[in-house]
Amino acid sequence: MTANATETRKTKRSPVLINGVDTPALFATIDAVRAQPDLAKFQFRAKSHWVSGTQSHCTMHGFYGAGNELTHVTAFTAVGDHPAVLCGSDHGPTPVEWVLHALASCLMAGVGNVASARGIKLNKVEATLVGDIDLLGVLGLSNEVRNGYQGVSVSFVIDGDASPEELEKIVMQSKARSAVYDIVTNGVPVSIGVKTPAMA
Amino acid sequence: MTANATETRKTKRSPVLINGVDTPALFATIDAVRAQPDLAKFQFRAKSHWVSGTQSHCTMHGFYGAGNELTHVTAFTAVGDHPAVLCGSDHGPTPVEWVLHALASCLMAGVGNVASARGIKLNKVEATLVGDIDLLGVLGLSNEVRNGYQGVSVSFVIDGDASPEELEKIVMQSKARSAVYDIVTNGVPVSIGVKTPAMA
Repeated sequence: MTANATETRKTKRSPVLINGVDTPALFATIDAVRAQPDLAKFQFRAKSHWVSGTQSHCTMHGFYGAGNELTHVTAFTAVGDHPAVLCGSDHGPTPVEWVLHALASCLMAGVGNVASARGIKLNKVEATLVGDIDLLGVLGLSNEVRNGYQGVSVSFVIDGDASPEELEKIVMQSKARSAVYDIVTNGVPVSIGVKTPAMA
Repeated sequence: MTANATETRKTKRSPVLINGVDTPALFATIDAVRAQPDLAKFQFRAKSHWVSGTQSHCTMHGFYGAGNELTHVTAFTAVGDHPAVLCGSDHGPTPVEWVLHALASCLMAGVGNVASARGIKLNKVEATLVGDIDLLGVLGLSNEVRNGYQGVSVSFVIDGDASPEELEKIVMQSKARSAVYDIVTNGVPVSIGVKTPAMA
């Protein structure tokens, strides 16, 4: 292999895959959606069934997006439960911990994409999430105390080949375009319908 | 075993465990918190680390509650990722699907507890959750389109030893005291802090 060939491959490869992100594909996706905005309409779905007590299982497989019915590579499943101290069987994280995971995974995905789009190699990104909740609401012992978290804090540690200011800006840009951050901070309308066998 | 002994065991057992819920323990917990409201202060936590691209791993283990530092029976882990159509490696559900799971598992836990507290045996409970999202927001292609879901719908099918009206009321009471329903519909303040090695 000549020095020239190595050089060519290097210049070809370096913008392609950074932090595991295929940045040309990412930019091409954004361009495709800009040209045809309907491709941006997605619908995500989950099917849950009650198992026993506070335990339930959920499957996430099919979704709609980019004009097509799609599926994940496999049907992902997850468990929700309460710990023993909250009269559950502790077969899985609590629903409110799943909210923290949802938020963390959204901010992390954004950090990966934003850093890559800016050509910044990441070495390590960690986040610790903490949510404070007063269960007087959930337990029906107070109408003044809300059911959900009083507040959530997220503490990032980020290391990469950029200045502290640039690294901080990556996290802040991720936050600015995070779907779950928007959902958790601003709220979303949720409708609930119920069918019983007698209605079927 | 005499008929009398069987009868005694039946009357003893039937209020104890229904739908896998130890209802006397549930009521005792509520009474204990009523007497000492500080026991209701909980803090849930998650630790997340970025893996590659849009993929991250999260651990949910320790939490604070009922006046003590506690842990789950094991350190639960979960993955978040984007599917290929969104330039990810599809190693796990998307962050916004995790929101659906969080909501489903909270409503399901409530249904289990409320039905049991009302002495209603559940035969089957399923829920299908759907969230619509326009990615023009997340992709930075529109400032008018929000980043998160436009809306979420939850469709329950519930079967149990009660009238359709009573079964529907179980779901509605679960919703009325659901932590995640409150978080997702009303929003929660989220603070984000960033540290870089240079600051450590």
